[in-house]
Amino acid sequence: LHSKLPEVGTTIFTVMSALAAEVGAVNLGQGFPDFDCDPALVEAVYQAMRAGHNQYPPMPGVPALRSAVASKIEALHGRKYSADSEITITAGATQAILTAILACVRPGDEVIVLEPCYDSYAPNIALAGGTVVRVPLTPGSFRPDFDKIAAALSPRTRALLINSPHNPSATVWSAQDMLTLQELLAPTDVLLISDEVYEHMVFDGAEHQSAARFAGLAARAFIVSSFGKTFHVTGWKVGTVAAPAALTAEFRKVHQFNVFTVNTPMQHGLASYLQNPAPYLQLPAFYQAKRDLFRAGLAGSRLRLLPCAGSYFQCVDISAVSDLSEADFCQWLTREIGVAAIPLSAFYGDGFDQRVVRFCFAKKDETLRLALQRLRKL
Amino acid sequence: LHSKLPEVGTTIFTVMSALAAEVGAVNLGQGFPDFDCDPALVEAVYQAMRAGHNQYPPMPGVPALRSAVASKIEALHGRKYSADSEITITAGATQAILTAILACVRPGDEVIVLEPCYDSYAPNIALAGGTVVRVPLTPGSFRPDFDKIAAALSPRTRALLINSPHNPSATVWSAQDMLTLQELLAPTDVLLISDEVYEHMVFDGAEHQSAARFAGLAARAFIVSSFGKTFHVTGWKVGTVAAPAALTAEFRKVHQFNVFTVNTPMQHGLASYLQNPAPYLQLPAFYQAKRDLFRAGLAGSRLRLLPCAGSYFQCVDISAVSDLSEADFCQWLTREIGVAAIPLSAFYGDGFDQRVVRFCFAKKDETLRLALQRLRKL
Ligand SMILES: CSCCC(=O)C(=O)O
Ligand SMILES: CSCCC(=O)C(=O)O
Repeated sequence: LHSKLPEVGTTIFTVMSALAAEVGAVNLGQGFPDFDCDPALVEAVYQAMRAGHNQYPPMPGVPALRSAVASKIEALHGRKYSADSEITITAGATQAILTAILACVRPGDEVIVLEPCYDSYAPNIALAGGTVVRVPLTPGSFRPDFDKIAAALSPRTRALLINSPHNPSATVWSAQDMLTLQELLAPTDVLLISDEVYEHMVFDGAEHQSAARFAGLAARAFIVSSFGKTFHVTGWKVGTVAAPAALTAEFRKVHQFNVFTVNTPMQHGLASYLQNPAPYLQLPAFYQAKRDLFRAGLAGSRLRLLPCAGSYFQCVDISAVSDLSEADFCQWLTREIGVAAIPLSAFYGDGFDQRVVRFCFAKKDETLRLALQRLRKL
Repeated sequence: LHSKLPEVGTTIFTVMSALAAEVGAVNLGQGFPDFDCDPALVEAVYQAMRAGHNQYPPMPGVPALRSAVASKIEALHGRKYSADSEITITAGATQAILTAILACVRPGDEVIVLEPCYDSYAPNIALAGGTVVRVPLTPGSFRPDFDKIAAALSPRTRALLINSPHNPSATVWSAQDMLTLQELLAPTDVLLISDEVYEHMVFDGAEHQSAARFAGLAARAFIVSSFGKTFHVTGWKVGTVAAPAALTAEFRKVHQFNVFTVNTPMQHGLASYLQNPAPYLQLPAFYQAKRDLFRAGLAGSRLRLLPCAGSYFQCVDISAVSDLSEADFCQWLTREIGVAAIPLSAFYGDGFDQRVVRFCFAKKDETLRLALQRLRKL
């Protein structure tokens, strides 16, 4: 069989998790919590199953969950989305992004991604027959370079993919960044896919600047989020897409012939759990404490800490510690030091190596302490 | 936004379910049970959640579930699939079929479907840039017409989609049918996508002839099944694909960038529940009794019963009852008689109307009795 994705292997996340398990390393590679979700959420799903919510839900999602999502966006960002025609529940954020791309991108269309970026974006674009146009974030700071983005725009540009809080760099776009983008896109009909899965992990008192806050962006945007990240249930695979009705209509045409619908009891459980905003309102403080614990543990080590304004990732510069490539360093660190990390090169199409690796701090404090104890050997 | 799927509206299943709910009709339209799953299955999922199985599973699925699926296929069909490299867990059968098509079909490739067929097939092929080649099943009997299939094969044919037990016609392919297909495809490199989601609903002592039983088919086949249909949990969205390692490798490349993984607690619950074969071994008798109840209730009415050898659908010829088109008849039946059905025309690209509609008998006996009472007014 002649591969349609010849360059794709198993994702780096799977590879590093498998290696960590094999050698008994502390797994700070793949982004997922090693602690459990709120037992109340489990009970809510159990109640839904016992109440018989086990058959197909409506294609766009359980109405109560769509309403809860619309209310949350309105409360946090001041924009009203219609639960009926503008919110869709997806089988996670990855499915949401592929579905949006399949709905909009035709062979020959260009889609701009800002590197480093999540490893599904480029294959998603390729599956739609589109051309990936890679624009680097500013080396060192990982800030958007709007001149470079402007230069990459062409009459063939169909969409731009952005992600803030950013995986892997842990940067967060400011309101000014979003305004600049809005101005840049104003004269175009470029669609925006805004991957906001780390929306509730923004630190130091800053606010998440959702595309929903900016009328000129919201009008052209698929805004993607994930309950897995927010409620510590990455394995439940429930996400959301908010988009204007005309975009949602096209999104749903593809969605209904991709997964058709999303797990019913999980949707009901999440709908009832979402009535209480405390769990997500507490999230910044919860993760900021973990970030601070992890950073404090590395202060004074030869792993140079990069800023971490959001997400549950901490990047470090390894150049004072090792001459190895990022990928080799991560292998070595996992095997010899007993801590798994992810090389940033995995987030670049050309494998660009800037001597930076990523740790995930969505871990129990004791896990972080064990990892730190090992990392201090460096 | 210029639609990529201009001809696609909301699926007929959603439309008819919504109408049935609106007018309070007995819903024998969309295929899903109105009874609940085994409480033991709910408990198994609950235990999995409480045991902390809430984060990402391995990308191809929970190993215990893949092993259970491989063992089941070997026990029922005598073919060994490697749980490691040949079984993948999907977010339902629809996602499995789109993923297989995206993995194999390139712009310009032809994919043969046998009409009437499930309404996701054609848009799935279109999303991959492929050309849908529609071959009718024999009018009246819905038997495969191998001469017509042979005539449709071309150097551009990339894949053939088959479905037995068949939705909507309730026919079942015989071993001889499968052998004939095997012979027909032998000189070609055409891939087979075998939609076997009703595998455990074959009646009157016949056996399901999985593509897994035929070496020449299995070697080129993606065999798709669904726990939703088998265990009365259509809303859980867990399916499987069995395919030779080379095909599975390409399938997983797309799968990992579509949904990445499938709901973890459901997978663990199903893995433990699948240890007991009784629930699926009892399924033919369970559904045969419902089929017989439904058919007996219509015997002597002017709705002419077509044969029902498998699936949970019963087709009837409406020509002695009404002059309306199938679609209008279904609307009328839902509104005026209080029973929802699905027009077979919805399963044809050109809306071919043969005066046949489909009822789903995956319903409580009391639901079927209520529907029959209303249908006897005809
Ligand atoms: C989908 S697996 C990886 C999880 C994740 O988002 C990451 O580690 O970057
Ligand atoms: C996916 S919704 C419809 C269920 C079904 O398979 C059918 O009714 O044919």
